[in-house]
Amino acid sequence: MVMKVEELGEIGLIERITKKFQVDKQLITVGAGEDDCAVIDIDKAKGGYRYLLVTTDALQESTHFPPGITPFQMGWSAVAVNLSDIAAMGARPFAFTIAMGIPARTETSFIDELTTGIEECASAYNTAVVGGDITRSNELILTGTCLGFANNPVMRAGAKVGDLLCVTGSLGNAALAVKAINNELKLSKRVEEIVKKALFQPQPRVNEGIVIANSGVATAMIDISDGLALSLAEIAKSSNAGAELYEDNVPVLSEEIRREECSELSTRELRELAFYYGGDYELLFTIELGALENEALMQKLRKEVNMSIIGKVVPPEEGIYFKKDEEKEKMEIKGYQHF
Amino acid sequence: MVMKVEELGEIGLIERITKKFQVDKQLITVGAGEDDCAVIDIDKAKGGYRYLLVTTDALQESTHFPPGITPFQMGWSAVAVNLSDIAAMGARPFAFTIAMGIPARTETSFIDELTTGIEECASAYNTAVVGGDITRSNELILTGTCLGFANNPVMRAGAKVGDLLCVTGSLGNAALAVKAINNELKLSKRVEEIVKKALFQPQPRVNEGIVIANSGVATAMIDISDGLALSLAEIAKSSNAGAELYEDNVPVLSEEIRREECSELSTRELRELAFYYGGDYELLFTIELGALENEALMQKLRKEVNMSIIGKVVPPEEGIYFKKDEEKEKMEIKGYQHF
Repeated sequence: MVMKVEELGEIGLIERITKKFQVDKQLITVGAGEDDCAVIDIDKAKGGYRYLLVTTDALQESTHFPPGITPFQMGWSAVAVNLSDIAAMGARPFAFTIAMGIPARTETSFIDELTTGIEECASAYNTAVVGGDITRSNELILTGTCLGFANNPVMRAGAKVGDLLCVTGSLGNAALAVKAINNELKLSKRVEEIVKKALFQPQPRVNEGIVIANSGVATAMIDISDGLALSLAEIAKSSNAGAELYEDNVPVLSEEIRREECSELSTRELRELAFYYGGDYELLFTIELGALENEALMQKLRKEVNMSIIGKVVPPEEGIYFKKDEEKEKMEIKGYQHF
Repeated sequence: MVMKVEELGEIGLIERITKKFQVDKQLITVGAGEDDCAVIDIDKAKGGYRYLLVTTDALQESTHFPPGITPFQMGWSAVAVNLSDIAAMGARPFAFTIAMGIPARTETSFIDELTTGIEECASAYNTAVVGGDITRSNELILTGTCLGFANNPVMRAGAKVGDLLCVTGSLGNAALAVKAINNELKLSKRVEEIVKKALFQPQPRVNEGIVIANSGVATAMIDISDGLALSLAEIAKSSNAGAELYEDNVPVLSEEIRREECSELSTRELRELAFYYGGDYELLFTIELGALENEALMQKLRKEVNMSIIGKVVPPEEGIYFKKDEEKEKMEIKGYQHF
């Protein structure tokens, strides 16, 4: 039998949701749905960390959820986008709250899948869902807030001239999915499944961020969810720097689909995928040039964070440009913007 | 010249908003708009407190904002409702994040007033706005998250049989404003201004909550933003208790308008105002019966938190009822619910 949330009522809905979110009572004295606030035993929870980090990010149906995404994946994404901001400073996430605007005619089974997605993503990254809010709204809107800890949070502002510009993983899978959904290109069934998973259920680079922060050589970091070009521009602006890019070093599309797809795409299309779309939840970071001499560290970064070196930091007056042979071409600053 | 946020662009909008939110750099290393997360020096910020509290609450135009409310008051309210949850556990608020869903055609002057309201409410309660998010949405939606500290957070679940049931301040001003807006009654200009201010710009009882928590005699606490009846039912359920209410002791309407208004309202109407409307941001709490013997403490509570004793806690099987002379009348459990 199909049941709508308006039939369940607010108290029933809160009970149904909060029973999914179990917490470690040693650290979290009061969890979701139990009281006016969540209560965290802060000294126990933080361990030896010095800094508390806070970030908030909202997703709403009409703007952020591509056609074909499941309720589970919507919930997963609402957590993942926030975890990605925690990852982008090299911090360890520990607690999460979720405010949900829910249309009255939403089916309760939809809410069950959505909250399972929230719980599974949080659990996958050792993060407790400690609280939230529900309101009635015209469209689904999920606003997450994530708390984390760090000793040496990596800022956007620390890049120095001469530093190496690096990314984790590969770029453009999510963009390829967007193009397929928009019928701009046709993919094999296998590739379509892989890229849609990247778009619908992003994997925040939490462990990678911690490894990068702990390396001792990272000078700046940001996630590239709004596209590599915009994120690079952000680091450049915050650090008062420019950037020289080696386009051939940029890892476009994940290895498992690279050969199958890249052959059909022009250089310009590959650049579009890697630089000018959002949806990749990789990290862009800079490391000291001297790190190159520490072979053990370089191997660790290549292996544990799938690091690629894609350029170097240059003086601000040079701007941001692609360099090939002796040619320089200015990078356009565009990507995903809400307004 | 009128300018819309869509003309300003996302980066311009973020700059315009975040420059309003200045923070104490001794405690908050990274504030709003500076990086992926806010960064708080947690040991410095928490001082001697043991517990970190987190709460999140969303307001949206169609559901929560009554006609006549100003953009300043919308922003103020988005902070106040979250501070009220912090107050309801007797905690000290210290940091706040705000995720804003903004329609593209919103005027930038509206955003300026809105963010001034956010900043002024946060400042009034020594709370720093440390971060946020903006997205484009169909209607205005403001999701706040507030962090606070406490040593002895007062839960909903601690009320014991025999405890006294108390409220801060007076109840029903906001309800009276709702009735006036709905043309259910006609108010004098003076009264209308007073009650609309209560509805549009609520004062969270932060200091009162701290005094109550520090009194050492508080056993349970909740805010009554969804109405006294629902909040009382929550305390009763969490504490496995019932309640006996002395209706004549319930302070209906603030002193400055009580005489003018109460004469025209029936007992039933007064009860409606005090029990079954939301919008009052007072605190409902229980204290140990023995507190009555400590005259100095009782005076302090009457003076500093405007305490009224409105009933007592009884065994759960008795339920919640009004008692007058020897008559008992069951209290209805209704109020403001979203679904």
